[in-house]
Amino acid sequence: MMYGRYTQELGVYAKEEAARLRESGQRRSVSDRSRTLDLLEYDKGRCAKCRRSGYPYVLEAPAQDFISVCTVRCQKFLISRVGEDWIFLILLGLLMALVSWVVDFCIAICLQAQKWMYGGLDSNVFLQYLAWVTYPVVLITFSAGFTQILAPQAVGSGIPEMKTILRGVVLKEYLTFKTFVAKVIGLTCALGSGMPLGKEGPFVHIASLCAALLSKFMSLFGGIYENESRNIEMLAAACAVGVGCCFAAPIGGVLFSIEVTSTFFAVRNYWRGFFAATFSAFIFRVLAVWNRDEETITALFKTRFRLDFPFDLQELPAFAVIGIASGFGGALFVYLNRLIVQFMRKQKVINKFLMKKRLLYPALVTLVLSTLTFPPGFGQFMAGKLTQKEALVTLLDNRTWAKQGIAEEFDYIGNAQAWRHPQVNVFVTLVLFIVMKFWMSALAITIPVPSGAFMPVFVIGAAFGRLVGESMAAWFPDGINTDGTIYPIVPGGYAVVGAAALSGAVTHTVSTAVIVFELTGQISHILPVMIAVILANAVAQSLQPSLYDSIIRIKKLPYLPELGWGHHEKYNIRVEDIMVRDVRYITLNCCYRDLHNVLLTGQLKTLALVESAESMILLGSIERAQLQSLLSQQLGRARRLQYIRERAVEEKKRLSIVLDPASDDNGSQRTSQEVRFQISTEESSFSPTRPVPHKPLKPALKRPSVVERPTELPTSPHDHSGIALKNLFCSSPDTEALEKNNNMESLMSPDIRRSSKRVRISVVDDGDVEDDMTIREIAEWEERQLDEQVNFNNCKIDPAPFQLVERTSLHKTHTIFSLLGLDHAYVTSIGRLIGVVSLKELRKAIEGSVTVKGVKVRPPLASFRDSGTSSSENETTELHKLWDRHKSMSLPRESTPSESEEKSQ
Amino acid sequence: MMYGRYTQELGVYAKEEAARLRESGQRRSVSDRSRTLDLLEYDKGRCAKCRRSGYPYVLEAPAQDFISVCTVRCQKFLISRVGEDWIFLILLGLLMALVSWVVDFCIAICLQAQKWMYGGLDSNVFLQYLAWVTYPVVLITFSAGFTQILAPQAVGSGIPEMKTILRGVVLKEYLTFKTFVAKVIGLTCALGSGMPLGKEGPFVHIASLCAALLSKFMSLFGGIYENESRNIEMLAAACAVGVGCCFAAPIGGVLFSIEVTSTFFAVRNYWRGFFAATFSAFIFRVLAVWNRDEETITALFKTRFRLDFPFDLQELPAFAVIGIASGFGGALFVYLNRLIVQFMRKQKVINKFLMKKRLLYPALVTLVLSTLTFPPGFGQFMAGKLTQKEALVTLLDNRTWAKQGIAEEFDYIGNAQAWRHPQVNVFVTLVLFIVMKFWMSALAITIPVPSGAFMPVFVIGAAFGRLVGESMAAWFPDGINTDGTIYPIVPGGYAVVGAAALSGAVTHTVSTAVIVFELTGQISHILPVMIAVILANAVAQSLQPSLYDSIIRIKKLPYLPELGWGHHEKYNIRVEDIMVRDVRYITLNCCYRDLHNVLLTGQLKTLALVESAESMILLGSIERAQLQSLLSQQLGRARRLQYIRERAVEEKKRLSIVLDPASDDNGSQRTSQEVRFQISTEESSFSPTRPVPHKPLKPALKRPSVVERPTELPTSPHDHSGIALKNLFCSSPDTEALEKNNNMESLMSPDIRRSSKRVRISVVDDGDVEDDMTIREIAEWEERQLDEQVNFNNCKIDPAPFQLVERTSLHKTHTIFSLLGLDHAYVTSIGRLIGVVSLKELRKAIEGSVTVKGVKVRPPLASFRDSGTSSSENETTELHKLWDRHKSMSLPRESTPSESEEKSQ
Repeated sequence: MMYGRYTQELGVYAKEEAARLRESGQRRSVSDRSRTLDLLEYDKGRCAKCRRSGYPYVLEAPAQDFISVCTVRCQKFLISRVGEDWIFLILLGLLMALVSWVVDFCIAICLQAQKWMYGGLDSNVFLQYLAWVTYPVVLITFSAGFTQILAPQAVGSGIPEMKTILRGVVLKEYLTFKTFVAKVIGLTCALGSGMPLGKEGPFVHIASLCAALLSKFMSLFGGIYENESRNIEMLAAACAVGVGCCFAAPIGGVLFSIEVTSTFFAVRNYWRGFFAATFSAFIFRVLAVWNRDEETITALFKTRFRLDFPFDLQELPAFAVIGIASGFGGALFVYLNRLIVQFMRKQKVINKFLMKKRLLYPALVTLVLSTLTFPPGFGQFMAGKLTQKEALVTLLDNRTWAKQGIAEEFDYIGNAQAWRHPQVNVFVTLVLFIVMKFWMSALAITIPVPSGAFMPVFVIGAAFGRLVGESMAAWFPDGINTDGTIYPIVPGGYAVVGAAALSGAVTHTVSTAVIVFELTGQISHILPVMIAVILANAVAQSLQPSLYDSIIRIKKLPYLPELGWGHHEKYNIRVEDIMVRDVRYITLNCCYRDLHNVLLTGQLKTLALVESAESMILLGSIERAQLQSLLSQQLGRARRLQYIRERAVEEKKRLSIVLDPASDDNGSQRTSQEVRFQISTEESSFSPTRPVPHKPLKPALKRPSVVERPTELPTSPHDHSGIALKNLFCSSPDTEALEKNNNMESLMSPDIRRSSKRVRISVVDDGDVEDDMTIREIAEWEERQLDEQVNFNNCKIDPAPFQLVERTSLHKTHTIFSLLGLDHAYVTSIGRLIGVVSLKELRKAIEGSVTVKGVKVRPPLASFRDSGTSSSENETTELHKLWDRHKSMSLPRESTPSESEEKSQ
Repeated sequence: MMYGRYTQELGVYAKEEAARLRESGQRRSVSDRSRTLDLLEYDKGRCAKCRRSGYPYVLEAPAQDFISVCTVRCQKFLISRVGEDWIFLILLGLLMALVSWVVDFCIAICLQAQKWMYGGLDSNVFLQYLAWVTYPVVLITFSAGFTQILAPQAVGSGIPEMKTILRGVVLKEYLTFKTFVAKVIGLTCALGSGMPLGKEGPFVHIASLCAALLSKFMSLFGGIYENESRNIEMLAAACAVGVGCCFAAPIGGVLFSIEVTSTFFAVRNYWRGFFAATFSAFIFRVLAVWNRDEETITALFKTRFRLDFPFDLQELPAFAVIGIASGFGGALFVYLNRLIVQFMRKQKVINKFLMKKRLLYPALVTLVLSTLTFPPGFGQFMAGKLTQKEALVTLLDNRTWAKQGIAEEFDYIGNAQAWRHPQVNVFVTLVLFIVMKFWMSALAITIPVPSGAFMPVFVIGAAFGRLVGESMAAWFPDGINTDGTIYPIVPGGYAVVGAAALSGAVTHTVSTAVIVFELTGQISHILPVMIAVILANAVAQSLQPSLYDSIIRIKKLPYLPELGWGHHEKYNIRVEDIMVRDVRYITLNCCYRDLHNVLLTGQLKTLALVESAESMILLGSIERAQLQSLLSQQLGRARRLQYIRERAVEEKKRLSIVLDPASDDNGSQRTSQEVRFQISTEESSFSPTRPVPHKPLKPALKRPSVVERPTELPTSPHDHSGIALKNLFCSSPDTEALEKNNNMESLMSPDIRRSSKRVRISVVDDGDVEDDMTIREIAEWEERQLDEQVNFNNCKIDPAPFQLVERTSLHKTHTIFSLLGLDHAYVTSIGRLIGVVSLKELRKAIEGSVTVKGVKVRPPLASFRDSGTSSSENETTELHKLWDRHKSMSLPRESTPSESEEKSQ
């Protein structure tokens, strides 16, 4: 029953340490207290999502001190007011509405300037061309350069990153003020250039940035703002605000942000999104009214379809066709986009060249695209002179352009004029517009500027819908209805349906339907839109991942794939089929050598702590960083110097032993350290002897006051300490393991690598004793040290890591992983550790061969091939074999300059 | 290291048993196999939601056999087709659309018949009154009687029950065919009576019933339909279908059902709801077109507000006022409804009388309500002759009723005529309508018929909005806008806003906004609606629970309250503050007596299994039922008879020992049973000796072929077996413990009670040996048996129950509980069990004193009193004291006949 006692003491220790930490927290100021509690929180392993989402910003100490000077009463009032969620949400909504409006205003000015230049140079076509082309090239190049220099994280839409962050992964530098500035200015310039880029994705990111910065600012007033779970909730609301204030679509914004960023959504957070998004959309539209752009608050792209007979029942097949075609189109778009990225990565010559001239790629792409849209040139056949917004307004027009297939007698007014061409009819123009814009948009969103793909896709969809609608109108000039009254067909309605369907297909969302209703201000086409969106989703989801998931895979962000539509076999795969049986573990009575070996071989972020190798009872899990710090404490220079000091004292004593033979208690400190689980109250008496500060590692790491000096250690001539240690740190996480592991681990554990660096520093100081040991002596000493038993006292153990059992189904495992944001779970059988399942295994099991190829391009119809009804169990074992084979080949990866997003990793 | 070995063997045993079970499953037919796997599933304790939701229906054995005669190939095809989610969803949508349409049709006929009767008896007011009153009384009484007899579970809206079921609790008989019939017919009659009742809540229940029955039917074709997780997903989709086909509002339906039934929503199930709801809404409206009710598919309550200037910015304060007032109104409605129920329960005299005459209450209420709406009587002042639908249509009318406050010059046509009264103006009519309908609706929904409250509240809200709108129109006859064009105020828009706001306030949902857009076919008032709905929600949520939560509390269904708006202190409460430290546990080496004692004292559904009382290492948890069956095996009659038989054999042998002294292996069976953890391969050789069938308990329980004979045992004269056993079963779960425990445990563990009955039966048969023991002998024998060590071989242990650590915050605990649908979690500290948290403790901690009083009526403004900013830690300890005091008082509860829903428990 030795074991029982040990563990009991361990438990008592953990508990009392927790109490001690809390007490020490209470000693600080009131506002500090809650933060301390949260930061020191002990149970992070349980709700892994919250643990990993620790934001990198903490309060500056002086500001905190200044506030704590104020009376507690005043502070309490501040907290109780400022801490209210609704205040935060209103501020966020207000801020985002202002940002959105200002950005829109600037974009409008930029576009007007281009038009003015183009119009002014009416006399000379060449000058006109130069003006038309130079302007966007300059803007895009500036945008690309600016973001590159200020914050490369601002590149792209930001939705993939937000999805990853909301899943609980900390992405460094993604929520900083720099990124905010880079994103806003970069986006304004990029959209001002008139390229087919969108505003919506970046706005999700901008809103999140706003929320994060606002939290940071508000935390100056103390209170709740340091709480991680709350911040995650606020980020989710911010995503809704982003979409909401971009389109003035609060409901669609909330739903779209949920669909795009979450896997499980807490209904209790629902109202936050609605509240903030509504407020934001309201302010956004009120600003337009105050600016005299609008008479009152209305929809952004108001349509005026007839209400009494919006569409005929017999038109529904046409809408269904739009849906299905949009599904294929959406999948093709995602595929095309990935193909372009892949192509750029593979071509090493281009790659190298572009790597050197980083701004060449954006400039080139912009040049090509703007040349093609030059109105007197090819642009005349594809309404090239219209901006995105103008094109959309004309496409949603409720008049019919083509009667009997000929567009002559229609009186085009205003911008709709652009669709007419004296030589070709409107159908050709539409087809050309769709085809050209399709690849142009797919290409444009690979430019490394802050930009989204939603709006371009939306416009293409609207054009496609319009095309079908005009064809229908030409086919049935008097409408289909035969009951007396003539209800002509409304091609604008088709455009609405097409827009919703294509954007739904590309993003894999249903809520685009709601967005179009809010954008157009009419809901009369609800059934056609819903039918088309659902069909488009069904087709697109079975062919390709969503655009955002595709980008996540391209960028190698950690992710968990969705369970597909009705893959029944997922219910029959069990954890035992996919788990890794060869678990790296450490035992309670292991020595430092075991620790060293385990750290050398494995690459998992956390290691299981079991009672003994025979019983395998799972006691908890320890983070790799904790073990590394344990090991470096044991082998560190400080301890060696102490040893030298002790040796010197001992020698001195041996010399003076004749004088006083009674003093023989010099080994007491050593012996007490041999007692592995001493009573916890004694524990505190130990801490002064240890060089590493006693506070838990994570909060310490976040404090900006600690200076990073990672390179100092190896260059120091006197320091030979790292023989075993260097071996460990140099070989393990940075080179092989992580490279092999698809860069994922490196992304998920920036803290670990940072901590390992930090640990290396912490042993440098206090060099008052001369280190006179030879390398041989050091090696001997280290060997001795490695044979000692590990003292887990100073180590943060997660006492309840998540456990599964062998027969948990894949479906449930997926649910639990995505619910709790886990990245690994131990498989136990009545207390015994028998395996481990990490995100990787889960992903493998769900995706089958897809992940094996990584980002390898998958043709749009590939999934039809592997959708056989083979026995699921055979399938998984097949998968295993396949995977093992592929893993041993260790696919090489290249990176291109155009994928500067990758730099952010 | 004894312990280590034991556990290892236990683990091996569990694993190999699982393998054995799977093998035995494979021996059966292919289609049977997947079901076996799912039913025998081992890891149910982990995802407790799925475990507890085991549906009570299983395949009939003959049908299964018939199918298994077909070739595997044919079946595979069937499975691959029928198993597709979309087929199921289309069938469900189609079915529900048909049901909805037929119900609507019948209701319309019923209402027309009443009008026709009333109109025909034009000459005599008394006869007219008689006809007006008798008709609904008869219909409601029939509906109440019919549901009472056929399926009392069909009473009420069903949304509270669906919320509970989706949380993972099994409510018996809630998803059966009987309930379906009772609900559909009862609902048709109830709504046909013209009472202020709604169709929406019951339709959520009907759709769920449909889905459950369809699953059952489809499972005849084998495949995926027995999977519990899938069925839960389908139920969630069904809820969306229910709302969707009721209002022809697919998007609103999905959102409303999510808000009302879920706490965490899996976005991956989103499309299911949208798909099914859209299809259902489509078919529902197509049926109307085919029936020549409509020319094409349009909204149900189409409005025709102007599009260009729907409302002025300066009207927004009026909309905000509607929102806030609706918030108070909604809270008042919930309070009033609960007050009525409370009143009926408290008045013992009324109670007793009504208990006897069950149909009197519905008849009386109907009589009162229909008397008040009698058109020539008081009804003339409150548009009494309009049906709910007609009233709504007139309220949403886009013309203004009142000009300058006088309604004279307006040319009322059609139904709008009903609002005009020669003596009183339209404002008085509207106010009377609102006030009267308010309490009438709150009263009407307490009638025990299938009925919802959404539609009545919606109409009241519309009337309130109309009132404000008409007042505004009277105040600003030429509109507020001063920019030249006159845009008169549209009171219909106010009605839309009011309807959304009040129904949102009562149900605590934001999605009523979407529902109104879909119902009216116009989205132009999106901002006012959103503002009003959010304000209404903010007010209502801070005052009262939602109507559904209120009913859940009244019915004492198990629930977990939501974390309120911005209760920051929740982040600072820890599990250690709320956990129960005195955990009931059993040890690995306990004897049956300990088991007996533990079962006698505790009342938790599951018990912790720890390694030993000293170490307290948590190994797993065992269900109470499993332990009871262990105990009854040990003390059961079968085992006693075996003992008698063995004794007889032994005696015979002792007599014949002179003849053959070599045969001495008779005790081998006994000794091998003494070995507590034998190698698992030996295990299977044991099973024949045990009287209880070896298959796990749950699937066995579900088989309808097993006949229940619960009363047989006690009456059998020869049976003295239950001395200790009877003691246990009679005292423990049925009487004190459960009564004390607020009936919650009894609801949550119907299986347990059933199993205890079943166990009692299983020991009755095989009576070939005469039971000749005296009671004294039996008592002695039982004493001996109780001192034996428990053999856990035959017992289903959940090897990984959910664990928390002491410092998990209340917020996280709540999240985890609602995410995983847990009802308890163990608190461990590095493997050691130190406490347990159940739903009860969590509820206490979240709700404070509210739960302590149970359903005690809480005045609408009560929450303002206890929203102080006191220290959270003091608060919880205060709560503990309060609760303990209240618990010892053990509040008495009465039930009224009107609350026949309670019978369903």
